[in-house]
Amino acid sequence: MAKYTAFNAEHAVDYIKELVKSELISVFPADATLTAYEFGDGNLNLVFRVADQYNNSVILKQALPYARCVGESWPLSLDRARIEAEVLINHGKLCPEHTVAILHHNVELALTVLEDLGELQILRGAQINAEQFPLLASHVALYLSRIGFYNSDFYLSAEDKKAKVSQFINPDLCKITEDLFFTDPYIEHERNNFPTELTEHVESIRNNDALKLAAAKLKAKFLSCPQTLLHGDMHSGSIFVDSKTTKMIDPEFGFFGPVGFDIGSFMGNLLLNYCAQNARITEQAKRRQYQTHLLTCLQDCYSQFEQHWLNLASSEATDISFANRAFSEDYLQHVLRDAVGYCGAELIRRTIGLAHVADIDGIEDAQARLAVQQQTLVLGEQLMLNATSCNNKDEFFSLLISLLN
Amino acid sequence: MAKYTAFNAEHAVDYIKELVKSELISVFPADATLTAYEFGDGNLNLVFRVADQYNNSVILKQALPYARCVGESWPLSLDRARIEAEVLINHGKLCPEHTVAILHHNVELALTVLEDLGELQILRGAQINAEQFPLLASHVALYLSRIGFYNSDFYLSAEDKKAKVSQFINPDLCKITEDLFFTDPYIEHERNNFPTELTEHVESIRNNDALKLAAAKLKAKFLSCPQTLLHGDMHSGSIFVDSKTTKMIDPEFGFFGPVGFDIGSFMGNLLLNYCAQNARITEQAKRRQYQTHLLTCLQDCYSQFEQHWLNLASSEATDISFANRAFSEDYLQHVLRDAVGYCGAELIRRTIGLAHVADIDGIEDAQARLAVQQQTLVLGEQLMLNATSCNNKDEFFSLLISLLN
Repeated sequence: MAKYTAFNAEHAVDYIKELVKSELISVFPADATLTAYEFGDGNLNLVFRVADQYNNSVILKQALPYARCVGESWPLSLDRARIEAEVLINHGKLCPEHTVAILHHNVELALTVLEDLGELQILRGAQINAEQFPLLASHVALYLSRIGFYNSDFYLSAEDKKAKVSQFINPDLCKITEDLFFTDPYIEHERNNFPTELTEHVESIRNNDALKLAAAKLKAKFLSCPQTLLHGDMHSGSIFVDSKTTKMIDPEFGFFGPVGFDIGSFMGNLLLNYCAQNARITEQAKRRQYQTHLLTCLQDCYSQFEQHWLNLASSEATDISFANRAFSEDYLQHVLRDAVGYCGAELIRRTIGLAHVADIDGIEDAQARLAVQQQTLVLGEQLMLNATSCNNKDEFFSLLISLLN
Repeated sequence: MAKYTAFNAEHAVDYIKELVKSELISVFPADATLTAYEFGDGNLNLVFRVADQYNNSVILKQALPYARCVGESWPLSLDRARIEAEVLINHGKLCPEHTVAILHHNVELALTVLEDLGELQILRGAQINAEQFPLLASHVALYLSRIGFYNSDFYLSAEDKKAKVSQFINPDLCKITEDLFFTDPYIEHERNNFPTELTEHVESIRNNDALKLAAAKLKAKFLSCPQTLLHGDMHSGSIFVDSKTTKMIDPEFGFFGPVGFDIGSFMGNLLLNYCAQNARITEQAKRRQYQTHLLTCLQDCYSQFEQHWLNLASSEATDISFANRAFSEDYLQHVLRDAVGYCGAELIRRTIGLAHVADIDGIEDAQARLAVQQQTLVLGEQLMLNATSCNNKDEFFSLLISLLN
């Protein structure tokens, strides 16, 4: 079984059986009768749930050698399965509370076996239904601050950091982000995807030199600022939740990049849902209440992320040059500006680029959907254009509130 | 001969004989009678000149597994010989006019065979003697702009760039810079080296929070800003010159770092010599004339470097996001600020850190030497503190002139 072959359900069952027999995983008893089905809705992987008659189960995820959404025309290195596994191991050590547990991985077959989080919901779906998760903000803040800080120059020796940068060089998946996030929305490209009614707005984006400059600067930083080992794909579809638990999955886009990217992406997804609710919740009081919840979640998450980082910097920094408050504050000011910029870029690319979000695309009324799309574009533009003017998180929150009102 | 052994002159002769016999180098005729002597004055390597009876010669450089200046207590990976060879090959393709030619290299023995530039002078020695090189500024500008641009995100594909970043991960040599350049001068450390009379000034540096913050920010960028494949050690001892020729040698500190580092280091060395001349050239008119020459060299070099980069960006940029004037100008504004900061840091670390320059240490009159050291410290401090206020090169030049008057 060492040579790569794309699995079907039978392969998945056989593979897990072998693991059980060899006692390489302990989820299933020896007499387990396994069944499997594929339910991946992503574009790059096969995802099987393998379960026994006692309701024990695991997830087997296998990378495909191409991007499913664009057929076999966008080949992708299977090395991303190794990267995903190694990011999960790294993040799992630093923040086991909020990282999906990895039970096994096989580099040749490009597969990982993961704990089954089936009892949880995917955040995107839950937020589309206006569900609230009071612990989400603090969980994401804890996760991002811990994985961010402990993989940064504050904590790692320069030698260890350089080795890790090399370990997590991830050209194929980074290229997807480089193209879809930073390049395509600002040029004419066949991969872009937006309704005809937005053409004028899209053209104004393509002609907005200040916005294109901001996008280019964010891209340059994405390319050449290996501050920490990012999750790399922190959208609402990569987060499993219930009222008590938050687990990040799918870090196959992980690489060493700018700290602000992950939290900016997460905030961007909260704002995409915020705007979508204008067309989803008809009752005004209910809508306002939910949008206030989302905004509070965003603010709490950012504030706690920053506070955790400051605390870690004052207690755990190993590099004497960086172990002082003034440096941490300056560092975090740049992280904030990056995060605001990436947040804005996420809003734009999810509206007019290749990959959209169900929060918006699932709005049935075309006119209402269009109004939301107009709003996400304006919001994204303004965040990108004003990101570097934000001196601290309160200025960012004020800017955001002024843009949402 | 594959297993590493530190060479003596006899080994060097035998090794080159083998290369001649195998026709791997063409410098020497078949009947060459070779002799060799070691003349390295560096701290990390053995350097042999191997010559024949017809006056043909080459340089054989071999890395030692430790830093010679601190005995065997600072072990260094021999991998730096591979890095030096691969940087020379990279830079030699991009700017053969100003890169020493590499004739052969052997990874196991950590050695390179280089063209002999013995007919040229080392820039530091020549500038100590107040010699002028009218083409130096334009040559350095051409070299730094070409190696910088063609190894940057402007030109390389993201995939190629990531592979190169990994190829040139250089932890051992980077650590020397991280420690000696950015850390030691701002703390109490046994490696620091300064006369007792400077103690008060050194303590004021250690207590200057703004200066330490500037140093920490420059260090953070050195650690996490792989913009291009730097030379990494652009001081006046790494440059061979005569009236027509300029050749860079010794890029063993090469790695992907911030563009401003190399040109900042080079400018710092010009300013170290500028200050040293206050104690070296007694005749005022002559001194002023030479210092004006140095300042003009610095300004011309920076101006031409910037202009070359702008020209390359407008004609050769392959990434559509970066192929516009506004992005290049913004990018170069940050390069300038970095360069001014690194320039200032070079002045400070060469005055109170471990590694000094002969321009200053060779001044015989202790009082005059001390006055120069005071000046380089003040100049370095002011450049570091004001670097981020420089909006363009003219503001930098004005700042510099005001500090030198």
